[in-house]
Amino acid sequence: MTDTYILHEDPRSGDCYKIKLTAALLGIPLETKQYDILQGETRTPEFLSSVNSHGRIPVLQIGDLFLPESNAACWYLASASPLVPEDRFAQAEMLRWMFFEQYSHEPNIATLRFWLQYIGEAHLSEQQRAQIVPKRIAGSDALALMDEHLEGREWFVGDSISLADIILHAYTHVAECGGFALRDYTHVCAWLDKVAAHPRFVAMDDL
Amino acid sequence: MTDTYILHEDPRSGDCYKIKLTAALLGIPLETKQYDILQGETRTPEFLSSVNSHGRIPVLQIGDLFLPESNAACWYLASASPLVPEDRFAQAEMLRWMFFEQYSHEPNIATLRFWLQYIGEAHLSEQQRAQIVPKRIAGSDALALMDEHLEGREWFVGDSISLADIILHAYTHVAECGGFALRDYTHVCAWLDKVAAHPRFVAMDDL
Repeated sequence: MTDTYILHEDPRSGDCYKIKLTAALLGIPLETKQYDILQGETRTPEFLSSVNSHGRIPVLQIGDLFLPESNAACWYLASASPLVPEDRFAQAEMLRWMFFEQYSHEPNIATLRFWLQYIGEAHLSEQQRAQIVPKRIAGSDALALMDEHLEGREWFVGDSISLADIILHAYTHVAECGGFALRDYTHVCAWLDKVAAHPRFVAMDDL
Repeated sequence: MTDTYILHEDPRSGDCYKIKLTAALLGIPLETKQYDILQGETRTPEFLSSVNSHGRIPVLQIGDLFLPESNAACWYLASASPLVPEDRFAQAEMLRWMFFEQYSHEPNIATLRFWLQYIGEAHLSEQQRAQIVPKRIAGSDALALMDEHLEGREWFVGDSISLADIILHAYTHVAECGGFALRDYTHVCAWLDKVAAHPRFVAMDDL
């Protein structure tokens, strides 16, 4: 492998952290290029034309190819590694949790963290404020489903850590910043500790 | 392969349709078991304990294993088929569009279709009504990004149809029911026609 990897990122983003944690667990070096999303640095004409016309980070640059979407970038880095199970059903189950994370977890838990920790409740629009309660309920449901699944299990899929664990860890471990009480989910807490105990674990930059 | 596949579904759901279209293109027989989500048939104690404790369809049953999440079910059916590119970057790019569909497309386009076509604007809660405009904007952004990507391309990834096309087709082709003007997106319209022209294409049950 002679590809150079450049991660276009904002270190406060859990989506960027997923990719850095995947790379760390695999011992893959990543260069990073940082943008401040609160300053609109991913909406400049240059960013839109050369990195991602969707105006979002993270984007994983692989040589001269650009790959948006955090979970797809993790898949790319981890393909053919022990972080992706080979068994057909186990692989699909891992993806099940990765799609769950995008649809049922991140829009609630990560969004409330972003609103409450980085924008601040006083600066939210009326529309955003009206969504706090529904997002609180849906995010709690997601944590409850994870907790139920983890009862009697060490990892989300099979007997070892996989991308499902890395990706769900990213915004779960900072869920308190979105106002979620993690202590209510004991199996989730035990699993977060297990992820953090991995010998190659790296913490999120802003901790 | 001696597995029997049973799709637990509501035929009005585009998520269920994705799985049926994938199976049809691959010539895989699927049995179906139908539930009325509007009548709460996926929230019964029996469904929660035996099919999916998340209370959602679709669920793909493979022998005695249960796989929730539509995109994961499509992945399972299509693994090692021509619907999943073998090239490492192309495979990650396909997943990029599948994650985009879950985060940026479905919560806007499918949700507005569900609210406006099946619940009816008059029966929406105030909270839901307040989300119509933001979802209209975000859904239009998703369609615009797809349109831009499809300019000069026949398929989302590479030179042939893949899961990315099947999965994005599902809720895009019924976007008008959510109040989106598909004719504004000419490349998307041409691509929808191409998907529908596949020799093994099957239409959504409710059309």
